[in-house]
Amino acid sequence: MRRALLAALLLAHGAQVLAAKPRSSAPTRSSADILDASAPGDWHTPPPEHTLYLETARGRTIIELAPAFAPQHVANIEALVREHYFDGLAIVRVQDNYVVQWGDPAPEDQPHKPIRQARQQLPAEFTRPLAGLPFTKLADGDVYAPQVGWSGDFPVAADPKKKQAWMVHCYGVVGAGRNNEPDSSNGAELYAVIGHAPRHLDRNMSLVGRVLWGFDALSALPRGSGTMGFYDKPEQTTPIVSVRLAADVPEDQRTALQVLRTDTPTWTAWVESRRNRREAFFVEPAGHVDLCNVPMPVRVVPQAKAHDSD
Amino acid sequence: MRRALLAALLLAHGAQVLAAKPRSSAPTRSSADILDASAPGDWHTPPPEHTLYLETARGRTIIELAPAFAPQHVANIEALVREHYFDGLAIVRVQDNYVVQWGDPAPEDQPHKPIRQARQQLPAEFTRPLAGLPFTKLADGDVYAPQVGWSGDFPVAADPKKKQAWMVHCYGVVGAGRNNEPDSSNGAELYAVIGHAPRHLDRNMSLVGRVLWGFDALSALPRGSGTMGFYDKPEQTTPIVSVRLAADVPEDQRTALQVLRTDTPTWTAWVESRRNRREAFFVEPAGHVDLCNVPMPVRVVPQAKAHDSD
Repeated sequence: MRRALLAALLLAHGAQVLAAKPRSSAPTRSSADILDASAPGDWHTPPPEHTLYLETARGRTIIELAPAFAPQHVANIEALVREHYFDGLAIVRVQDNYVVQWGDPAPEDQPHKPIRQARQQLPAEFTRPLAGLPFTKLADGDVYAPQVGWSGDFPVAADPKKKQAWMVHCYGVVGAGRNNEPDSSNGAELYAVIGHAPRHLDRNMSLVGRVLWGFDALSALPRGSGTMGFYDKPEQTTPIVSVRLAADVPEDQRTALQVLRTDTPTWTAWVESRRNRREAFFVEPAGHVDLCNVPMPVRVVPQAKAHDSD
Repeated sequence: MRRALLAALLLAHGAQVLAAKPRSSAPTRSSADILDASAPGDWHTPPPEHTLYLETARGRTIIELAPAFAPQHVANIEALVREHYFDGLAIVRVQDNYVVQWGDPAPEDQPHKPIRQARQQLPAEFTRPLAGLPFTKLADGDVYAPQVGWSGDFPVAADPKKKQAWMVHCYGVVGAGRNNEPDSSNGAELYAVIGHAPRHLDRNMSLVGRVLWGFDALSALPRGSGTMGFYDKPEQTTPIVSVRLAADVPEDQRTALQVLRTDTPTWTAWVESRRNRREAFFVEPAGHVDLCNVPMPVRVVPQAKAHDSD
């Protein structure tokens, strides 16, 4: 029984190493089949100038920023990173089935780390125009929005009547914490979803990106016992060693991530393989799939050795 | 900025201590208002004969079993508990955004803890007849099932055409692990959902209950680095000190939980307060709510002192 659930879960998450699997004789292909048959062009490398490495003692967490959805927040986070604003700050909050949050751990009435070059104040970026947005629609419908799907590496919703689109609070999506005023976020305090998608926050927050790799360094942290999962005592917080843009890290220290592109026939097949699971474990394929229940396949490619032709 | 997201999250989870909050002047009531105004009869105590206390070094996790959905599995789990089957076993697997799983940590080729009184083999209990099931419908629709809502303390789906109902894999729901054969679960290996609802498992697993309290003792455990989140090494597993039925625990050692009833006008108001958030933080109430995004309010009531009228 130790391996119970094995078949069901073997390919539950694209972010894991994908075991080779014999071709299925089922009428449609399994998730493993789709990825086994993918071509190099089905994958892309997230742009290093918009990719963050958040380093803690538990390891590296990699976040892709989304300038198409929150351009001013993304630019400001990049400015904060380049002035090393986050270095020495901390994970200050972990609320079970909700969010992990990081920023300045200093108490309200104590001096805070100054922001030097970045902006203190930004407009809210809760939605963006639908026009001009690449959009791969999901046909399965959604409880919250007229349309959902993906744009680039991000889960999105759209309202054609309002001509708006917005990123969706799926597991691992990253947003900018704020106070009651809609324009009170500036990217210096960030959160990521660690539970069932809190979709009631959609269109109420400026979402800035998503975690692509190494999320367990944050999601498995002890939950805070204070109000809303804030830690009661400074010694409970997890220090942030550094946050850097991948573009600013020497190439041999980067993690060579590739993400399955969402604008390809392979992606369409991938979604179908999640909608109707063809592994032998499944008795009753669901016939439908929820946006936030489609994992994003991510892989680390072996680094080419420098000078290997010398 | 430290308190950013504060208003949004203050009442995000019913399972937390609920701060008193002034009555809102908004047209409908906030989540806090609903619970503040609830009557004692809006709450009930889960039956101690179907409530499990799972004890680890991290504390007590409380699970309510669901005999209405998996009567044979629930009876067998209770038999296993009464023969102390789980005592000394372990949490063997934690897969991020998916499940935590517990059972016998012995390797496949090693002797396993014997099952003495309980049954080795059970039929699959993936669905049950819709007829005779109390059912509070959610009007907001669902991507996966024709109808969803609650029955007792459990999130459920129903298909009136097929005259079937089944429990849904929301965060914290507990199921019986199995191998490929549908009837290969017996309740000796259990899992609980720690991520976005893996709804593709609905109607493919025998679901046996839900976590009501103390889930962070399991959900925040380190993720396993082996295949599917299994731990690579025995020393990484978390030992289970004991599992007991609340009914078998002396009253003064029980946790006096109460759960908001799902068959009351207060529940209807609670759901509306989650569908359209009225706290000052929210700019754009969602207008809809997903079944698994409605938290179940749970509270610990102060224990009456014995003989306090002596």
